[in-house]
Amino acid sequence: MNAPVDLVEVWRGDILESVHQGHAVICGADGGIVQAWGDAQATIYPRSSCKMIQALPLIESGAADAHGLGVEQLALSCASHQGAHIHTDRVQVWLDTLALADKDFRCGPQWPQDIPARNEIIRAHAAPCQIHNNCSGKHAGFLTLNRHIGGDADYELVDHPVQQACKTAFEEVTGEASPGYGIDGCSAPNFATSVHGLARAMSFFATAHDRNDTRSKAAVRLREAMATFPALVAGETRACTDLMRAMGGRVAIKTGAEGVFVAIIPEKRLGVALKIADGGTRASEAAIAAILVKLGVLDADHSAARARMVPEIRNWRGTLCGHIKPVPALL
Amino acid sequence: MNAPVDLVEVWRGDILESVHQGHAVICGADGGIVQAWGDAQATIYPRSSCKMIQALPLIESGAADAHGLGVEQLALSCASHQGAHIHTDRVQVWLDTLALADKDFRCGPQWPQDIPARNEIIRAHAAPCQIHNNCSGKHAGFLTLNRHIGGDADYELVDHPVQQACKTAFEEVTGEASPGYGIDGCSAPNFATSVHGLARAMSFFATAHDRNDTRSKAAVRLREAMATFPALVAGETRACTDLMRAMGGRVAIKTGAEGVFVAIIPEKRLGVALKIADGGTRASEAAIAAILVKLGVLDADHSAARARMVPEIRNWRGTLCGHIKPVPALL
Repeated sequence: MNAPVDLVEVWRGDILESVHQGHAVICGADGGIVQAWGDAQATIYPRSSCKMIQALPLIESGAADAHGLGVEQLALSCASHQGAHIHTDRVQVWLDTLALADKDFRCGPQWPQDIPARNEIIRAHAAPCQIHNNCSGKHAGFLTLNRHIGGDADYELVDHPVQQACKTAFEEVTGEASPGYGIDGCSAPNFATSVHGLARAMSFFATAHDRNDTRSKAAVRLREAMATFPALVAGETRACTDLMRAMGGRVAIKTGAEGVFVAIIPEKRLGVALKIADGGTRASEAAIAAILVKLGVLDADHSAARARMVPEIRNWRGTLCGHIKPVPALL
Repeated sequence: MNAPVDLVEVWRGDILESVHQGHAVICGADGGIVQAWGDAQATIYPRSSCKMIQALPLIESGAADAHGLGVEQLALSCASHQGAHIHTDRVQVWLDTLALADKDFRCGPQWPQDIPARNEIIRAHAAPCQIHNNCSGKHAGFLTLNRHIGGDADYELVDHPVQQACKTAFEEVTGEASPGYGIDGCSAPNFATSVHGLARAMSFFATAHDRNDTRSKAAVRLREAMATFPALVAGETRACTDLMRAMGGRVAIKTGAEGVFVAIIPEKRLGVALKIADGGTRASEAAIAAILVKLGVLDADHSAARARMVPEIRNWRGTLCGHIKPVPALL
C-alpha cells in the first residue's frame, strides 16, 4: 500500500495544529480512475457508506415491491439516521407492516444523535431501543428481504442468505473480490474493498440510468430516494443531509464511520470514494465537500458547503479560534 | 518538520482499518532527549496538557497561599474535569471564597461530559454554566491570581498580567521562546512549543524535588496534587484519572485536546510529551499508556492500562469487532 497523502488541515491561530491524511478516487463511467489522491488500491472498510449497495438485493429480489416499500423507506434503507422522530416513526410503521417488533432487530440499542429525541429518553428515565440505532432503516430492509426469502431470524450472520446476497452485489459493483470482512457497529458484516473499488461501485450507481438490467434499475431507485429525501438519510445538521440539500437532489452522498465518504454524480457519470487514514469524520466531510465543489456540483459559496469544507473552529464563548480546510491539491 | 510516524493502529477483524501517526519525546533530567518518535522539533499546541504550567504563577506569586488554597484546589487548577458534582461543587466553594460568581469566568458554558450531571441539567430543562466548563478549575486559579495582583477583569486576554505570567513560566520551563499562540477552547491563550519543549517542561516537574527555588517547589506541589486527587483532574471513566489511579500516585499525567498527552515521572526523573498528528484522543491515550508501560511505571496487565493501551472495539450489541493497539516501536 502506498502512503496516504495530506488532505485536510486544522489551523488554530497562525499555526497548523493537526493534519488528516487519506486516499480518494474519482471514478469514471468506464470504471477507470479519473483522478486519485494517495493510494487508490488501499484496502478499506466502506462501513455505512455502502448502505446503498447493501440495499440492492432488497429491490432486485422483488422484496421491496412485494411489501409495497415507498421512496421514503428506500431512503431509510440507505440511511445512517440520527434517531429523530422523522426516522424512528417511519421505521416503526415499517416494522408494524412486517408484524415484527424491536426485538427482531439485530442492530443493538443506540442513543439517538438527535438532541430532542435523546433528551426525551433521558427525561423519561428510559433507555434507547434498537429502532434508535442509526442503522435501523437498513435493518428494516434486511428484515423485509429476509421475510421475502423465508430466511432464519439471524439475518445479520455472514453466512445468512441476506448477507450473502449483499456480498454478491458488493463484489459485483465494486468489481473486486472482497479480501475479507469485519463486523460493523450494527452487527452486520462489512466487506472490505479498495478505495478504487468503492468509487467504481459509486460510478455503477451514477451510470445506472444508462442501463435496463434489474440491478441498474434498483440502483437508480436507491440513489434517487437518497437525493429526494436527504433528511431521512441522516438528519438535521448532518453533513449528508445538508450537502444533498445544497445540491438540490442532483447528487447522492453518504458518510461511513472511520472517515469514509462516497458520492454518486449522475449528471457527470462519476463516482467518488475517500477514506481518511486516521478515521476522522471532520476531515472526510471537508474532503468530500471540496471534491464536490471541484467537480462543479456543489456551490462553494453555499452556507452548507462552507460549513463542511472550511468549517470555523469556535470555542465555548463563540470566539473564532481557527478553521479546518482542504489542502490545495483538493481544490 | 519531519514526518510523523505510525504510533497507533485500529483493527477490525483481520484488516487494519485506520492508523494514527504522531510525535513523542521522553526527556531526561538534563532536558535532553532519551527517546523520540517522529519529529521532536514539531511545533504543537499543548492545549490542556500544560495546565500544570499555567498553574505555576498561581503558587509562585503567593496567591495560592494568600487565599488558603488546599491540595484539592491545586489539583482542580490543573484539571480538564468533566463537570461532575465532585468538580463543580468544589469550584463553586472556591468562587464563593473569592466573592465571585459564574459570570466572572471567561471560559464559556460547556455541557458536562459527566452523564449524571448532564442528565440533571436536561431534566431541569436548564443550560450549562461556565462552572461546568472543563477548564473552570484552571480559571478559578486565574481569578485567584488576578485578585492577588489586582488585575482587570479580562484575565483571559493575552496581554493581561495573568496570561503574561503564564507565558513567562511556559517559555522558561519549556526552554524555548514560543513561536506563537492560539485561543484555546476556554478562551485563554495557548502558547505553542515543540514536542521536545513540552517534554522538557515535564522533566522540569519530574526533577523539581531536587531543587529549592520557588518555581520548583510550586511544581512539586502541583504534580503531587494531581497524583493525589486523580478524580479531580478528569473524572470517573476518564483516561487521566484511571491511569493515575493505576499508577498509585507515582506519576502525574494530563491529556490535551487534539491528541496531546504528557507525563511527569519523578521516580525516573523523566518527562514525556506526545502529539497525535490528526488530533485523535483514542490514539494519544493508547500511546501514553504504552510509553508508561515501557518505562516500567504502569502495569500492562492492570485493567486500566489494557482499557487504554489495547482497547477493545465493541458494537451496540456488545460484540467484539476489533481493537486498538500501539505499534511495535512503542512497545
